[in-house]
Amino acid sequence: MSIPFPPPGSKIELEEGSTLSPRFGADGLVTCITMDAATGEILMVAHMNAEALAKTLETSEAWYWSRSRGELWHKGATSGQVQTVLELRVDCDQDAVLLKVRVAGNGGCCHTGRRSCFYRKVELSNGEPRLIID
Amino acid sequence: MSIPFPPPGSKIELEEGSTLSPRFGADGLVTCITMDAATGEILMVAHMNAEALAKTLETSEAWYWSRSRGELWHKGATSGQVQTVLELRVDCDQDAVLLKVRVAGNGGCCHTGRRSCFYRKVELSNGEPRLIID
Repeated sequence: MSIPFPPPGSKIELEEGSTLSPRFGADGLVTCITMDAATGEILMVAHMNAEALAKTLETSEAWYWSRSRGELWHKGATSGQVQTVLELRVDCDQDAVLLKVRVAGNGGCCHTGRRSCFYRKVELSNGEPRLIID
Repeated sequence: MSIPFPPPGSKIELEEGSTLSPRFGADGLVTCITMDAATGEILMVAHMNAEALAKTLETSEAWYWSRSRGELWHKGATSGQVQTVLELRVDCDQDAVLLKVRVAGNGGCCHTGRRSCFYRKVELSNGEPRLIID
């Protein structure tokens, strides 16, 4: 990893400073939200370890840590659905990252073949939640 | 909690079914992304346990689990920045939730006083990441 991330400093540095010092959790990960830069649609939620975040910054393509496979994941490497990162943002306490991306290939993102992973809304029917694909 | 969440079923039920069966992690939480329903701006990332999710569904106001305080958190209860939930979505494997909300009070969300927690973008300067407030 060629981009080092210093450990988080004081609360004021973390929240107002110009140093990227991600607060990786006990599992070594931060949460990442990925948004379509053109439409604003939320495409997916995934996780990044330090190496994935560094590679994302270095290459301007989205890299994640696959918790299910336990490996670094260059999104789109096999599917062609590479995500070019147009903007990368961090939240106040630096434990979450927001990527605004342009998706290559067929524009999909979800492993079910859909464009976004958030293809279902929750509605209450007689007080019971039900999922509706829309 | 009056809304029970059944344990996750098969992969096909989880991904294509109409049953809300959240996959709470080992810490009992799912990730929640909160978006301004009117502007599409990402306001915050937080977490929900089963009780917070049930209360959110029952009241149409956002409830989270505060990991720092270790308690249920009715967002806006003290600040007036209550989040009315207009839409609640779930992702393919049901371990993340997306809320589209309308914020009451002064419309803020972040504890720093800003509207969104994602008030900084990351830019590379001579290969080093720097945070820019914009």
